[in-house]
Amino acid sequence: MVDYNAFLSTTGRELHESAIRKMGTLGVRIPDLVSFAAGFPDPVTFPWEDLREISGELLSGRDGTVLQYGPTRGYKPLLDAIVDVMAARHVRTTTEELLVTTGSQQGLDLVGRVLLDPGDVVLVELPTYTGAISAFKNVQARLVGVRQDADGVNLDDLDAVCQRERTAGRAVKLLYLVPNFQNPTGLLISLQKRRQLLEWANRRDVLIVEDDPYGVLYFDDVASEAETRAIKADDQHGRVVYLSTFSKTLAPGYRVAWMAAPATLSARFELAKQSMDLSSGIFDQRVVHQAIRRGVLERLAPRLRDLYRGKRDAMEQSLRAEVGDALTWPDPKGGFFLWPELPDGLDGDQLLERAIEERVIFVAGSAFYVDGSGQRRIRLSFSHPAPDRLQEGVRRLTSALKPAVANRSMQTR
Amino acid sequence: MVDYNAFLSTTGRELHESAIRKMGTLGVRIPDLVSFAAGFPDPVTFPWEDLREISGELLSGRDGTVLQYGPTRGYKPLLDAIVDVMAARHVRTTTEELLVTTGSQQGLDLVGRVLLDPGDVVLVELPTYTGAISAFKNVQARLVGVRQDADGVNLDDLDAVCQRERTAGRAVKLLYLVPNFQNPTGLLISLQKRRQLLEWANRRDVLIVEDDPYGVLYFDDVASEAETRAIKADDQHGRVVYLSTFSKTLAPGYRVAWMAAPATLSARFELAKQSMDLSSGIFDQRVVHQAIRRGVLERLAPRLRDLYRGKRDAMEQSLRAEVGDALTWPDPKGGFFLWPELPDGLDGDQLLERAIEERVIFVAGSAFYVDGSGQRRIRLSFSHPAPDRLQEGVRRLTSALKPAVANRSMQTR
Repeated sequence: MVDYNAFLSTTGRELHESAIRKMGTLGVRIPDLVSFAAGFPDPVTFPWEDLREISGELLSGRDGTVLQYGPTRGYKPLLDAIVDVMAARHVRTTTEELLVTTGSQQGLDLVGRVLLDPGDVVLVELPTYTGAISAFKNVQARLVGVRQDADGVNLDDLDAVCQRERTAGRAVKLLYLVPNFQNPTGLLISLQKRRQLLEWANRRDVLIVEDDPYGVLYFDDVASEAETRAIKADDQHGRVVYLSTFSKTLAPGYRVAWMAAPATLSARFELAKQSMDLSSGIFDQRVVHQAIRRGVLERLAPRLRDLYRGKRDAMEQSLRAEVGDALTWPDPKGGFFLWPELPDGLDGDQLLERAIEERVIFVAGSAFYVDGSGQRRIRLSFSHPAPDRLQEGVRRLTSALKPAVANRSMQTR
Repeated sequence: MVDYNAFLSTTGRELHESAIRKMGTLGVRIPDLVSFAAGFPDPVTFPWEDLREISGELLSGRDGTVLQYGPTRGYKPLLDAIVDVMAARHVRTTTEELLVTTGSQQGLDLVGRVLLDPGDVVLVELPTYTGAISAFKNVQARLVGVRQDADGVNLDDLDAVCQRERTAGRAVKLLYLVPNFQNPTGLLISLQKRRQLLEWANRRDVLIVEDDPYGVLYFDDVASEAETRAIKADDQHGRVVYLSTFSKTLAPGYRVAWMAAPATLSARFELAKQSMDLSSGIFDQRVVHQAIRRGVLERLAPRLRDLYRGKRDAMEQSLRAEVGDALTWPDPKGGFFLWPELPDGLDGDQLLERAIEERVIFVAGSAFYVDGSGQRRIRLSFSHPAPDRLQEGVRRLTSALKPAVANRSMQTR
């Protein structure tokens, strides 16, 4: 027998499983499950007809490069198109600063590998995105949480935590933020705080990693396009590594995302990517490029905003009708998630066990906290299920909740 | 000004650029260049009509999962199809042992991250594939070369090198091999030696990483299917991590490859992949799955073998006619490459400079050696250029060679 443990690297031994992905494998095994777990876009938004037309034309055979290896940086016309996408987000950038990545997850992985040595500190919001936690933990970084107010990271806590880590002799390199409709809270960092964070990063010599998958998906009854202004838009000194993706706005199946970073760093990210996958899928990149150039993406955006706002409404109304005030959550300003707080004495992991019996899943809040807290939170994704499934899921969740809140006034329909 | 160097990790500082990818960027800048550099498949082999049909059907809109996030392991029906592909290669495997990767390059990167700590030793052939060198160097592994005979790695040298490294206190974990039509030499490890290598790995407690992108592409005038038998086919003890890809047989633009490893390791690779890109492109995987199920891949294989054998002939004949005996090379038994030795006193990097002036490129041999040697070798890829471009490239290469071999009898047409 081979002793495989003896062959594992430190990384290999300490790999951190994604709580979200774990839920995904459950979904395959349990029939008739309703999933509020993964942040999947609703497939009714995929522009099938456009994609069929684009794919047919690309596969005519007239241009062999459509299915060939491509440059690591990305398909040049797509990079040019992304410069325009960034300009629409008020960020001036050049193709030298851009890199196409295989999903934003690869961008996070690149940040970890190129910037972080074991023990280096990344400051993250409490709570924060699990994919970032995994990527940074897998390079043995030290993740330190910062308290969050309703308008984003608490600046006093941020500075105190940073100074404490530095005093202890650690290298605080990065502040990781999801400013728009944060995963999992759905919150928005205020414009004022964005400027303050940038100023703070310059003062303390920290790089900001700005992860922006959801910026386009604001709910226009409670948020405006202006409020989603990227921190990167005001980055005069090259402090910000910005990540975004076409997964939430076109389709995740294509795995096309990008990062915009100071050119010196982009060149390093490109080199690292060479040995990671040579290049992202070139056919996928060409499809996305055409979807931008033909205006498909632009036409989609308002439809997506309407659809997800409607789904937020549906879940909120359904939850309020079923569980009354047993669950409370901050109003999401955009994105895919509700972030309810559980009643006293109930924790997310316990609830999940009961929920699975009721054939509904979500992600327990603890997965989003790097400080071991979050037991009284759950993340509910309303983005994917069809309306009737969403209702059904809420009913099942209510059944799972009932024993725990029997002693409370649970206002039901 | 931000001092970005202060933010780089050890990996970030020491990133190793791929010589092949570097050539690729040259290709974009020099008009009318003939490239013998990259191992690109010939786009005339891409089955456009089938792919158009498959894509059209997949994008009908009837099945939303076609463009959705997918499981990290891979699209289950594709994994099932790969079990059959492996069976045709005489390897019995299960889906628990398989992982779909974003190109074989990701497989190499996964091997590096999950198995290698800084300073761990990987034994590699002299010469070996540059993409493996990059992936392993980027985790700060120590790459140690082993001499190669015409039938593969020299077993005495292998054992001596392994024992020397162990005596020096280093962990020798992996032996990396490209048994079929090695990149860059085009050689084939003999069946007898494959068995001996497996036996050696079991005896010395080393894992074999078997990289097999070209196995299907044997030239049937000098090699047979039987001679390409995977080392993994005889792996009774779970010693072999096997990598292969659809990039050379279907199209590289889809970035769909796979690895087959003992289930314990596969589970680790899957976890690592979660934080690297969540999953490989699901649309691409579905296209590849259909291409297998509809027999497209099977019908293609003999055509590919004929085509590349013909291109090998064309390059060999053209080279012999132009440069006579100034260049000699081992007969490639399959794959995409010739591996000529340069005349005395000429080195590959110098020749490359002159070749670029003549608008032809290749990869200088030194890129494939981990011991600093290889100056008198060059790798010429005949797989991609159309016949007339191939001829033109050889003429240009001859012009670049001429000053250096003026004193030799250079037999020209």
